[in-house]
Amino acid sequence: MKIGIVGYGNLGKGVETAVSKNPDTQLAAIFTRRHTGTVTSKSGVPVLHVDEAANYRGKIDVMVLCGGSATDLPLQGPEFAKLFSTVDSFDTHAKIPEYFKKIDETARESGTLALISCGWDPGVFSLARALFSAVIPDGVDYTFWGKGVSQGHSDAIRRVDGVIDARQYTIPVEEALTAARGNQRPEFSTRQKHLRDCYVVAAMDANKEKIKEEIINMPNYFSDYDTTVTFISEEEMKEKHSALPHGGFVIRNGETDDGVTQVAELSLKLESNPQFTASVLLAYARAVYKMSSEGKTGAITVLDVPFGLLSHKSPEQLRKELL
Amino acid sequence: MKIGIVGYGNLGKGVETAVSKNPDTQLAAIFTRRHTGTVTSKSGVPVLHVDEAANYRGKIDVMVLCGGSATDLPLQGPEFAKLFSTVDSFDTHAKIPEYFKKIDETARESGTLALISCGWDPGVFSLARALFSAVIPDGVDYTFWGKGVSQGHSDAIRRVDGVIDARQYTIPVEEALTAARGNQRPEFSTRQKHLRDCYVVAAMDANKEKIKEEIINMPNYFSDYDTTVTFISEEEMKEKHSALPHGGFVIRNGETDDGVTQVAELSLKLESNPQFTASVLLAYARAVYKMSSEGKTGAITVLDVPFGLLSHKSPEQLRKELL
Repeated sequence: MKIGIVGYGNLGKGVETAVSKNPDTQLAAIFTRRHTGTVTSKSGVPVLHVDEAANYRGKIDVMVLCGGSATDLPLQGPEFAKLFSTVDSFDTHAKIPEYFKKIDETARESGTLALISCGWDPGVFSLARALFSAVIPDGVDYTFWGKGVSQGHSDAIRRVDGVIDARQYTIPVEEALTAARGNQRPEFSTRQKHLRDCYVVAAMDANKEKIKEEIINMPNYFSDYDTTVTFISEEEMKEKHSALPHGGFVIRNGETDDGVTQVAELSLKLESNPQFTASVLLAYARAVYKMSSEGKTGAITVLDVPFGLLSHKSPEQLRKELL
Repeated sequence: MKIGIVGYGNLGKGVETAVSKNPDTQLAAIFTRRHTGTVTSKSGVPVLHVDEAANYRGKIDVMVLCGGSATDLPLQGPEFAKLFSTVDSFDTHAKIPEYFKKIDETARESGTLALISCGWDPGVFSLARALFSAVIPDGVDYTFWGKGVSQGHSDAIRRVDGVIDARQYTIPVEEALTAARGNQRPEFSTRQKHLRDCYVVAAMDANKEKIKEEIINMPNYFSDYDTTVTFISEEEMKEKHSALPHGGFVIRNGETDDGVTQVAELSLKLESNPQFTASVLLAYARAVYKMSSEGKTGAITVLDVPFGLLSHKSPEQLRKELL
């Protein structure tokens, strides 16, 4: 299976690494919008300008789109679906129906297959919600995120006057996790579910008290949470906060009969969020390749893919090993 | 969707209850091998002899086979697949390939669709293993069972001379669970993973020390484990050990790159093992109904079913709610 990567940031690099862990996959080329002279790949695979992608039609089985949801994918998704079967991680929740529709039309017209909104949330977590709500129909869903770095919240802090760098960890509240697994099926406020733990490098002359107040009162991002702010040096930031861990919990708590509680839970503990997301994208690229080879076209999501297609193993082998 | 139940034990009763939690399903009839005069259903649905099932062809969309794997399903599986689309929980691991082949042939010839080996293990746990091994290909799988009642082990104790009743709980070892989620990917011996906790009602004149020795040294069942034996009264057995709780953990622990650990985990905490299994069977009966309506025939497993088909909701609604 020949893979192409579009976008060579953290996620694209993750896909490149994931290919090395999946012997049935092979990386054909990496495409970037940057000046290609400035970019060399870790694996030695050619890095080309996105405008050259059309020349690779027929030479790449699945193109993994690694751009962001805000500006890259709304353009690249439909554009690449004209030429290739694709997988992407589009995660702007409110715009998924519109994005799905557009990709579906393009892919059907072009005879390609495009799997959208893949990764871990949306993605693996969506699958857990789908399975759990089907097998425990009378129940309540809980999703907790973390402990992990939220890029959006880190960026929001960086925009505060006097802040040089920042890292924000989202942390699920232990008591809430425990309660979600119990017999009561409680409702939680935003504040009860997650803590926000911030590490900030301030400018030499900055007013730290003012920065702290501005962070913890920031609407949408922090004002609804219990937030801690710790000022650290640039060195400490680099040394202790360079990784991008993440994870979380999907819990379904319900009853199959009066007073008979059933709890299902899926959790992820990820030392690298982008590498795990990339690894999920590659597994689904395999499924897209198989389904596309059987003539399937249009847009699909993780909810349309049987798990047997995610593996390089035969159905017989999977039944023998997994059932 | 009209459902039939074959076998009215704990599992069959669980399916009957599950139907009441799934408004798009309707119970048409229950079939039993027993003398039908002696059996009345909780829901008031007719209880008929299995020999009458053929008369219900066309009146039942999916037949849920609730017999045991040892003697019932090897006969009933192929027999019912001749007449109906079916779902069953066949779990004799070593015989699954043979069973699959037989059912597949019968169902193809008969134009029916039969989903075999469904429930939670095999079933939900198989799905977790499939997904996790696809998205973390370089890793190790751990499965832990419990805390829960093992019927097989309880039965084994009941066969010991002087034992009137027994209940055996399989309990995962906390330290092993913690280690399985850590950075070392340890190998465990059988003894290191699970404890066996036994509650025994002995006959008045029985030699309890002898019973205890016989249990803890029983090959295959107990000799490889740390086993505790507690003698209790019949009243206490009835009062404290009548429920059939179970559950467990599937953990995949691996790396997406050197030294980058990723851990995925699915766990179930079930107050009623048969009710949960039944609820899973019914969700898959829905998928069988949909796939069969689209012309699919033969034998399939949970690995062949996209999660979108498990729900009564439309694909649009699922994408909106779950992604």
